Amino acid sequence: MKSDSVLPSICYGGDYNPEQWPEEVWHEDAQLMRKAGVNLISVGIFGWSKLEPQEGKYDFGWLDTVMDILYKHGVYVNLATATATTPAWFVKKYPDSLPVDRNGVRSFNGSRQHYCPNHPHLLEHMKTLVRALAEHFKEHPALKMWHVNNEYACHVSRCYCENCARSFRTWLQERYQSIERLNECWGTNFWGQRYNDWEEINPPRKTPTFVNPSQELDYYRFMNDAIFKLFAAEKEILREITPDVPLSTNFMSSFKPLDYFSWAQEVDIVTWDSYPDPREGLPINHAMMSDLMRSLRGGQPFLLMEQVTSHVNWRDINVPKPPGVMRLWSYSTIGRGADGIMFFQWRQSRAGAEKFHGAMVSHSGDDQSRVYREVKELGHELQKLDELVGSRVKSEVAILFDWENWWAVELDSKPHNKLNYISIVEDYYRELYKRNIRVDFARPQDDVSAYKVVIAPLLYMMKEGEEENLKRYVRDGGTLLVSFFSGIVNENDHVHLGGYPAPLRDILGICVEEWVPFAEEQSNFLQDGGETYRCTTWADIIRLEGAEPLALFGEEWYVGSPAVTVHRFGKGKGIYVGTRPESRYLGRLMESILKERDITPALQVPAKVEVTERYTDKERYVVIVNHNAHPVRITLPADETFLNVFNGKKHDKELTVKGIDAVVLKKRRRT
Amino acid sequence: MKSDSVLPSICYGGDYNPEQWPEEVWHEDAQLMRKAGVNLISVGIFGWSKLEPQEGKYDFGWLDTVMDILYKHGVYVNLATATATTPAWFVKKYPDSLPVDRNGVRSFNGSRQHYCPNHPHLLEHMKTLVRALAEHFKEHPALKMWHVNNEYACHVSRCYCENCARSFRTWLQERYQSIERLNECWGTNFWGQRYNDWEEINPPRKTPTFVNPSQELDYYRFMNDAIFKLFAAEKEILREITPDVPLSTNFMSSFKPLDYFSWAQEVDIVTWDSYPDPREGLPINHAMMSDLMRSLRGGQPFLLMEQVTSHVNWRDINVPKPPGVMRLWSYSTIGRGADGIMFFQWRQSRAGAEKFHGAMVSHSGDDQSRVYREVKELGHELQKLDELVGSRVKSEVAILFDWENWWAVELDSKPHNKLNYISIVEDYYRELYKRNIRVDFARPQDDVSAYKVVIAPLLYMMKEGEEENLKRYVRDGGTLLVSFFSGIVNENDHVHLGGYPAPLRDILGICVEEWVPFAEEQSNFLQDGGETYRCTTWADIIRLEGAEPLALFGEEWYVGSPAVTVHRFGKGKGIYVGTRPESRYLGRLMESILKERDITPALQVPAKVEVTERYTDKERYVVIVNHNAHPVRITLPADETFLNVFNGKKHDKELTVKGIDAVVLKKRRRT
Amino acid sequence: MKSDSVLPSICYGGDYNPEQWPEEVWHEDAQLMRKAGVNLISVGIFGWSKLEPQEGKYDFGWLDTVMDILYKHGVYVNLATATATTPAWFVKKYPDSLPVDRNGVRSFNGSRQHYCPNHPHLLEHMKTLVRALAEHFKEHPALKMWHVNNEYACHVSRCYCENCARSFRTWLQERYQSIERLNECWGTNFWGQRYNDWEEINPPRKTPTFVNPSQELDYYRFMNDAIFKLFAAEKEILREITPDVPLSTNFMSSFKPLDYFSWAQEVDIVTWDSYPDPREGLPINHAMMSDLMRSLRGGQPFLLMEQVTSHVNWRDINVPKPPGVMRLWSYSTIGRGADGIMFFQWRQSRAGAEKFHGAMVSHSGDDQSRVYREVKELGHELQKLDELVGSRVKSEVAILFDWENWWAVELDSKPHNKLNYISIVEDYYRELYKRNIRVDFARPQDDVSAYKVVIAPLLYMMKEGEEENLKRYVRDGGTLLVSFFSGIVNENDHVHLGGYPAPLRDILGICVEEWVPFAEEQSNFLQDGGETYRCTTWADIIRLEGAEPLALFGEEWYVGSPAVTVHRFGKGKGIYVGTRPESRYLGRLMESILKERDITPALQVPAKVEVTERYTDKERYVVIVNHNAHPVRITLPADETFLNVFNGKKHDKELTVKGIDAVVLKKRRRT
Repeated sequence: MKSDSVLPSICYGGDYNPEQWPEEVWHEDAQLMRKAGVNLISVGIFGWSKLEPQEGKYDFGWLDTVMDILYKHGVYVNLATATATTPAWFVKKYPDSLPVDRNGVRSFNGSRQHYCPNHPHLLEHMKTLVRALAEHFKEHPALKMWHVNNEYACHVSRCYCENCARSFRTWLQERYQSIERLNECWGTNFWGQRYNDWEEINPPRKTPTFVNPSQELDYYRFMNDAIFKLFAAEKEILREITPDVPLSTNFMSSFKPLDYFSWAQEVDIVTWDSYPDPREGLPINHAMMSDLMRSLRGGQPFLLMEQVTSHVNWRDINVPKPPGVMRLWSYSTIGRGADGIMFFQWRQSRAGAEKFHGAMVSHSGDDQSRVYREVKELGHELQKLDELVGSRVKSEVAILFDWENWWAVELDSKPHNKLNYISIVEDYYRELYKRNIRVDFARPQDDVSAYKVVIAPLLYMMKEGEEENLKRYVRDGGTLLVSFFSGIVNENDHVHLGGYPAPLRDILGICVEEWVPFAEEQSNFLQDGGETYRCTTWADIIRLEGAEPLALFGEEWYVGSPAVTVHRFGKGKGIYVGTRPESRYLGRLMESILKERDITPALQVPAKVEVTERYTDKERYVVIVNHNAHPVRITLPADETFLNVFNGKKHDKELTVKGIDAVVLKKRRRT
Repeated sequence: MKSDSVLPSICYGGDYNPEQWPEEVWHEDAQLMRKAGVNLISVGIFGWSKLEPQEGKYDFGWLDTVMDILYKHGVYVNLATATATTPAWFVKKYPDSLPVDRNGVRSFNGSRQHYCPNHPHLLEHMKTLVRALAEHFKEHPALKMWHVNNEYACHVSRCYCENCARSFRTWLQERYQSIERLNECWGTNFWGQRYNDWEEINPPRKTPTFVNPSQELDYYRFMNDAIFKLFAAEKEILREITPDVPLSTNFMSSFKPLDYFSWAQEVDIVTWDSYPDPREGLPINHAMMSDLMRSLRGGQPFLLMEQVTSHVNWRDINVPKPPGVMRLWSYSTIGRGADGIMFFQWRQSRAGAEKFHGAMVSHSGDDQSRVYREVKELGHELQKLDELVGSRVKSEVAILFDWENWWAVELDSKPHNKLNYISIVEDYYRELYKRNIRVDFARPQDDVSAYKVVIAPLLYMMKEGEEENLKRYVRDGGTLLVSFFSGIVNENDHVHLGGYPAPLRDILGICVEEWVPFAEEQSNFLQDGGETYRCTTWADIIRLEGAEPLALFGEEWYVGSPAVTVHRFGKGKGIYVGTRPESRYLGRLMESILKERDITPALQVPAKVEVTERYTDKERYVVIVNHNAHPVRITLPADETFLNVFNGKKHDKELTVKGIDAVVLKKRRRT
Repeated sequence: MKSDSVLPSICYGGDYNPEQWPEEVWHEDAQLMRKAGVNLISVGIFGWSKLEPQEGKYDFGWLDTVMDILYKHGVYVNLATATATTPAWFVKKYPDSLPVDRNGVRSFNGSRQHYCPNHPHLLEHMKTLVRALAEHFKEHPALKMWHVNNEYACHVSRCYCENCARSFRTWLQERYQSIERLNECWGTNFWGQRYNDWEEINPPRKTPTFVNPSQELDYYRFMNDAIFKLFAAEKEILREITPDVPLSTNFMSSFKPLDYFSWAQEVDIVTWDSYPDPREGLPINHAMMSDLMRSLRGGQPFLLMEQVTSHVNWRDINVPKPPGVMRLWSYSTIGRGADGIMFFQWRQSRAGAEKFHGAMVSHSGDDQSRVYREVKELGHELQKLDELVGSRVKSEVAILFDWENWWAVELDSKPHNKLNYISIVEDYYRELYKRNIRVDFARPQDDVSAYKVVIAPLLYMMKEGEEENLKRYVRDGGTLLVSFFSGIVNENDHVHLGGYPAPLRDILGICVEEWVPFAEEQSNFLQDGGETYRCTTWADIIRLEGAEPLALFGEEWYVGSPAVTVHRFGKGKGIYVGTRPESRYLGRLMESILKERDITPALQVPAKVEVTERYTDKERYVVIVNHNAHPVRITLPADETFLNVFNGKKHDKELTVKGIDAVVLKKRRRT
């Protein structure tokens, strides 16, 4: 991709499935799109059975027409490679391409994504289709981007069929070279699981009790790799035929099965889908995912490829977004690095399993619905933000996030088997979000020297080199905050012996002697300088080895023992949180760290107001999102002037933002 | 059947399984039956393996003896065709006759009904047995009725085996003629599901995510038809051999998989099974089902083929009916059209999975148990009701009820996926029940012009012709009440475009712009003339197009928008309820409608007293059931006299009914 | 076994898996063991794949080394036969050895115990291994005991594969001889389930609805027998080669699938595993299981083969034992007959599914952890208890306990399908535990004439001879207390006809006419002499036939009817409890019975203090366990003197026991 961005404007549009409608509707659609400010549309995602109705016989005509119509109306196309669902003729020809679950139960066609990623003929058929498609459309002027497949692995992240078993054995041979090495890394002397031969190994199918966790972990790795191969093969063809057209595949935010950090290195721009539940109020997880998605490619702006205008259809109860909320959440994402706001989908389907999923144009088909009006207003507003395109976000705080750690920490047979990795990460993120502190995500092996503070929540797995990386960071002056149950195992899920958390003991100046997981009905409290705070989930029994206690446990047989500690290490500090404190405590701890490291938000604002910043070489943009129903008054710094990008209005001293409203300001040092 | 009724008396008896007992018990049973007033007994339901112990070798001798004994004691026989469970030799010979679930898991013999309805050899074996049985018993004087199979589909309403897949493809070819038509009706352009060939189609087995809803819906239809074919084949043989013996098969009240409206057209009399849980108090659902069952064949009296004297055994916790309650509920059913009260079963089994199911004669075997005493008393009392036999019920209100709509509205991927069709229907029924308003059920395509009021709860699916039918009804003066989420899709589950509820907008004078499903913890309230009422589950955002609001929503972002509306259409009215109001509101709304349409109960009675009426050409019977523990005093109309049918006593002015008691009165205009 | 005990001291040690560690750790381990007072270690449990890495090629060298090292450090070995998990090469060679569940789903290797007990080649491979192992180690001086297999059936108590189907048919032929007899005992005339041929019979796999309960019950019996055959085959070889080495296999306390009463007759000493959840407070179930395990072999002392020092890893949330608690619970077991306290496991694994299971030596590997310190202190303390070894417990109360009854009463389609056998047994045990009354368990067919009181909770199934046995017991002067839902069926799960509880009516002087199971939200109360008590779960409608009421029901339609009754029968008494009373009532009832039969505890102590007694020919030991956090003062009988076995100190008149502490005293009549 030549620049960071697909279009010189904020991309705006959505998924479009013209094959579901007669041709006359296509023209109507194109006009409604123009009217709504749409400039990019994703087409053909589920088109395989229509583009190749019989094996080897292609029909691109209808798609030519669609793309011509769109182009004539000034709408560009994010063209899908159409490989998301294998056609019925493929299933009929290769019934063993249907995926099989852990219990040996096969899934059939009739919905979507019913393929085993390791089927020996799948890839060849996908490649043939993609080549034909790319050759056909490579010169089409509407083509601005490739949408490879769709939400890889969303329904079938694992298959356990015989094809997979064979591929898994090959993958293991490549990884371990010798069966003896595999036995060692899988700890197969436990429960007499030793293998003499690669052929003896099976996927972690149903077993009488807990399966070998190293085997399970490798199956996560293997499946991630197997699915990635499908993507890589399509990419190779597209690169060859259309070297200048950027390509991506839509990620699904906090989607466990795929290691998006590694995937992101292979796309030209991160695109992702986000469906927060409006029942949950403040979209903190959505914000966190925006920050994570931006971090996947080192801060490069991304596209929000799918969100919904109002409501989805796949939850038990699908509550709509109230008026204005779709716009607010869009700006929250823009403030965190989005160069595009797209929807699933353009026109609500009439039939099928998603006919009650919200869309830009609803079943009524008219342009008078609340939803369409909001879509149109946002489309026109975004046209005023061309100058934001390509601008970046800068953070002084990083949270360590690692997919392999996620896989490992949520395996079974742990001290506490209800720990949710994302929740614990969110515990820390939330306190930064509430204080409008900009945060990046990084992997534990990444160079984090640019950050003042690094937070490692539930960093259970620490792989080769990570100990040294974090030691270097703290030794050179960084502040590292580590939560309970970190530094426990290596990349094979084998315990780092010698006292927990072995690879972090030097930095933290402690030894954790025992763990006390809490039952749901249990809790304890923290004592810190006369104040008390609730804590739940877990208590570490900590022996101090140089660290000082910041808070002590308030009851139970370990009353008075340290719960939170701090330790000088080199020029930096290691802080340890040996429990799950309530937000009030974590916020207070965070504030003291931020203060010490002189980290401040862009503006001081009331509660439930988001402030984010994006930078270009020359300009600095502030995005303010007021989630309150009431207006808020914001005091502006004395030495700066703010220009409203929507209307050019200038603000000094103070600014009022209406309830459920967002503004984008340009910040200028007052001269 | 020559008349509406099987016997000239109220049928009284139950299922009988003499094969579980030695012959000496048969004589004892027959004597106890006579003593209890039993006149009809169902025999042989699970007899296949005993009547045809080896393929082609029949043993009818024991059944001859049983029927002779019964006949000698004045007990008639409802003879089962014995096809309810395939014998073990059949399973051994045809292991692929065992049914397979959605996940490919086969069910084995060892319980009952372990057959795939589409097995290629099943029907031929069933037919051979039925022919042999009918030929053998056609002249037996005890034979008064045929009991075809038993509770069709109760455990295996769907099979997904390869035999079913083949039959499904054939069924689809007959329905759609061309694959293109199927693609259209199934909306297969969605998610790339197009089929080129019938052979590519599978039953809706396990799929990676939501299956095509049109496919799923057709599988309901197909399975209903496949199971019906089994019945039709037996019927054909019985008609040929015993043209004068009425036949039926026992329905299971609100049993979703079978469309009893269509089945009922093929039986001579509706017979059904009812097992309300005594924990639930007032038997409203039982009453509703009585009314539904009566409505299946246009009001013809029916037989309650199975109920239990005291308790069942298949719930988690099987609470017995307290003293007197079995009698009360029997009269509730009689008041709604029953010409027979039968039980499962006569003598409690000693072994097997139902040995703890209540019976007319219990394990103690004596005639002193409370249960047997109640059975005997009721039996003798019913003998006084010969004159009721064949009498009918008249209603001025109809509730629309449609099995295909039920199937469709409870498919997945809806705005609200916890909607329960029967519950919503019951919301409306309950208000009529509490006011002792007689109600029929009708299909949306039926001629409803005879009713003053028609209620359409959750009429999500509206098929070809139904729009016109309801328009005609209202235009000609009818009052139509429609609930939320009605008029949404056609028979293929494709949305009626152009604004919800498209086929009803003219009648109702509204357009529903958005839906707001409520999470379990959410609710809103209605404002209607200064009063407020709670509402739950759902809110429609309604745009008025001629209708007037009756109630407004009381909070949330759509505060003040219409929730309940009324609209004049032709000579009639369309009332719309865009939420799920509490009973207090619905009762009030219903009362205003009843008042306007001048619909009144047979008698004004206190709460928890049921009043129903049955008519013959000459007489009018009132059945009063007092569910209260205390006696109630009822004021009788000044111009009428009431004769107690049990004892001939005459009542003017007022009547006292004891607690937990029922009376049957004959009503006479006072002269 | 020559004596009742394995070693002349209390056995102390645990499971040891040296194959998980390099050889240098073995030496370290042996030293740590000696330091901790360990004298017995279980080795090789999961060793098959390491001892026979390829079919027929054995490698005993590493185990020679381990046993030599242990022996040199004074540690004896409980050598496992290593058959607990089939090796991967076995699975590869015999894929049909993998077990299959009720739904036909196969379990794979990758965890443990992945074998079908009926696989035709399994037994031969197990026998070959055991013979080779026994021949190799028969002379090793460390060998003190055989540990056959491990926790038989813990994960795979049932398999439903074709091999099992074949074996089941053979088993049935042996049991029933003729198919006609099977039809009778299975009641196959119910639901038309008759069999003509053994080949028609299947295991109770998935069925459309409730499976034949007699078939299900026989499958419990068959699987218990099939698994027992594996044990018996190993035993035969070990007896032949090492006739003097005692052997056992570790039981799992209240483990439903295996009838330990019959298994126990075939081991030399009962060994068992116990993992009470520390969240549950007082270890009543652990105490009950100690008493049950002791009773399996008529009071012979047993070994607690596995418990955990602190926490397990297989619960959702694994709470550790607080300081001191492991010791307390160990003494509770010793007081009830343990001659050994062993742990799973010696050294915490580094890899695999149990790496977070507690151990004697933790991941830190040091000897400073709290857990190791407690282990060491207990080890040294137990060395002072040599004189206790072989001593016995005497009880005057027995509770009837029967595995077949357990299987039957928890089958489905019962009046109340949430009854939990162990809970109801525990209702009665708890009252005895709280009063420190020693209790044995016995089977209903056992001679119980030595007991003053016999309690029969939920004795649903009464087999041939049990009626006579209990009649003899009561007639001769015994007090029999029977709970509701007892005496209902015979060994085939066929009802005892003629009025419940038919085989007990003479003893109890009652007839139960009806059952009223309670829904969770329902309860009633008992009236007994002016006082009232809550009762739940169930009410019997009792007709007195000679008995006198002790308590009456307080409400509902059966208000005033008898709930608890007493009846003189011969020289004894039959007491019936026709409901589930709260502890307060049951305790009161129990106290009146104990008083009448003059049954008293060893000492009068405050609440939450356990007192147990063990006897030798000469001495009488009292074990006191104070579960309170606070010290308790105990008044000693005036005529006895108590010697503290740990320190020789003498106590008269009174004794103080510290909080969370235990003492062992020798009791002497004061002279």
